[in-house]
Amino acid sequence: MKIAIDAMGGDNAPESVVKGALKARDEFSDLELVLYGDKTAIEKYITDQTRITIVNTTEVIGMNDEPVRAIRRKKDSSLVVAANAVKAKEADALFSCGNTGALLTAGLLLVGRIKGITRPGLLSTLPVVSGQDGAFNLLDSGANADSKPEHLYQYALLGTYYASNVRGIKEPRIGLLNNGTEPHKGSKVTQEAYQLLAADENLNFIGNVESKDLMKGVCDVVVADGFTGNAVLKAIEGTALAVMSLLKDTIANAGAKGKLGALLLKDDLKSIKGRMDQAQYGGAVLLGVKAPVVKAHGSSDDLTVYYTLKQIRTMINEEMVPNFTKYWQAQQAKEALDSKDAE
Amino acid sequence: MKIAIDAMGGDNAPESVVKGALKARDEFSDLELVLYGDKTAIEKYITDQTRITIVNTTEVIGMNDEPVRAIRRKKDSSLVVAANAVKAKEADALFSCGNTGALLTAGLLLVGRIKGITRPGLLSTLPVVSGQDGAFNLLDSGANADSKPEHLYQYALLGTYYASNVRGIKEPRIGLLNNGTEPHKGSKVTQEAYQLLAADENLNFIGNVESKDLMKGVCDVVVADGFTGNAVLKAIEGTALAVMSLLKDTIANAGAKGKLGALLLKDDLKSIKGRMDQAQYGGAVLLGVKAPVVKAHGSSDDLTVYYTLKQIRTMINEEMVPNFTKYWQAQQAKEALDSKDAE
Repeated sequence: MKIAIDAMGGDNAPESVVKGALKARDEFSDLELVLYGDKTAIEKYITDQTRITIVNTTEVIGMNDEPVRAIRRKKDSSLVVAANAVKAKEADALFSCGNTGALLTAGLLLVGRIKGITRPGLLSTLPVVSGQDGAFNLLDSGANADSKPEHLYQYALLGTYYASNVRGIKEPRIGLLNNGTEPHKGSKVTQEAYQLLAADENLNFIGNVESKDLMKGVCDVVVADGFTGNAVLKAIEGTALAVMSLLKDTIANAGAKGKLGALLLKDDLKSIKGRMDQAQYGGAVLLGVKAPVVKAHGSSDDLTVYYTLKQIRTMINEEMVPNFTKYWQAQQAKEALDSKDAE
Repeated sequence: MKIAIDAMGGDNAPESVVKGALKARDEFSDLELVLYGDKTAIEKYITDQTRITIVNTTEVIGMNDEPVRAIRRKKDSSLVVAANAVKAKEADALFSCGNTGALLTAGLLLVGRIKGITRPGLLSTLPVVSGQDGAFNLLDSGANADSKPEHLYQYALLGTYYASNVRGIKEPRIGLLNNGTEPHKGSKVTQEAYQLLAADENLNFIGNVESKDLMKGVCDVVVADGFTGNAVLKAIEGTALAVMSLLKDTIANAGAKGKLGALLLKDDLKSIKGRMDQAQYGGAVLLGVKAPVVKAHGSSDDLTVYYTLKQIRTMINEEMVPNFTKYWQAQQAKEALDSKDAE
């Protein structure tokens, strides 16, 4: 398999991107990586080019570039050239740590939507921290600011394929993010989405879930409109960081007794940080397009890049996109037939 | 001043409600409290009836009662009789730890909306935990599932009066919850709301804010539609609880060294819990109705009830509702005049 990598995206590019790619290449013998970017800058970090191809590009899309304009105008940017390789089926997936909006736009306009998927959504993976070890997926976590009930329904299908194919969960539990658990609760959009989700027998829909219960592992996949999903994702991340930084400040300002206590507790506190670390789950995945399009955090280090390439490899090996597309096309065909019968 | 208290609402009612009320009565000599509920059950906890009136009621609205139906049918419930006392101006504010939906409905239907405020919103207060000590207000945190731009604008005005009158903040910084900080970001609703907020020179509008920055104190008041506001509120609460419970579990499962460390660090860890405690700020306030209508958590203890009565007392003493109403009416009159001039 071949993964197209935007080597110039992210705060630590190209160094962390290249080093993470090499680590993945060394571990997985089925991995071929194509690095797009400034060839000279990339080569600095590579001695062994086994299963590594470098494609020189002359432009870079920055964090502050307006996404649609950047994709249209910067034709020789590392991201656009990488995306075009996926479009031309020269590569199986697209990966970047750069400008999120630009990557989403490249996914939509260049890699292209699966027919009938009107609004591809971004799937994030977050840790479950109470009770059992684990994780949950949240989508749409920010690709679309306005969503309709049918988009939420499509997210439930897409999320089911991600959780079963990539995370190996049999019949993943799908929850609908809402402001109460009762079926009648919510906005007009969630009330209608509830009906669509409940009507599909192939979905393991467990009903409405509240954001306060997500980290308890109440479901495997939670679907939400992209505006609320994004706000919840950032609230969870921001709160976890704020509490951990409060803990750090408290220890820094503690007396001798407290400081000694913190020293003795150090390894245990580290395990908490590890448990909450999102990097282990890879990046955020744009679902509903014709190939895996994956975004890792702008501040990603080597290890995060490695984990994300590992995640992409699983998506390709498990044929997540083809499996979903086959199911989706069959379902669409059946619906077309049913509506014809009804005439 | 007189506060009407639903003594039967909440998990620990009437005991915690009554005990908290007595504590507030003892501390504030200007406070007269009217307790509505089962007279016999309430009297058990009272020896000194100074500035306490008990009004016997025969019904209770439970946590699972459907709000509108309960308010319409349970005419002799502690909540309805208390709300009617506020409506009749026999009391200055309404307080309950019971069914949130029922209290909101009582606020809307019995206490009544301020003329021109189409959708009263629920204001919550949350701690700022990084950097300086402090708090921020979030509204609407869940009164309405669907909101229009003009509702968000009204929340900004209402929140300004709360933060300045109750928290003593001069020109409170108002942020608009959005999925990016750039002015053009967001959903149709937030894009339009941004324009309304930016156009009002009397507001100290600082622009879009993201949920990840709220606990850093990026603004004093954040306005949001009630669906997203509720999801963010619960995500923050849920994450803080999850991290604290992870910390607790980690200590419980630590070896002898870690356990000793935790013991030495105990007081410091307690201070973290104190810093994140919401109870100190009182309850959630329904803003946009003719008198303070305040909800404390169902699991409130004596101290939370006491803090909430203290908060209500400030609202009454500072004349928050009359001050807002005066400003709002003048603004409405000016607008009417302007639109007449324009004809």
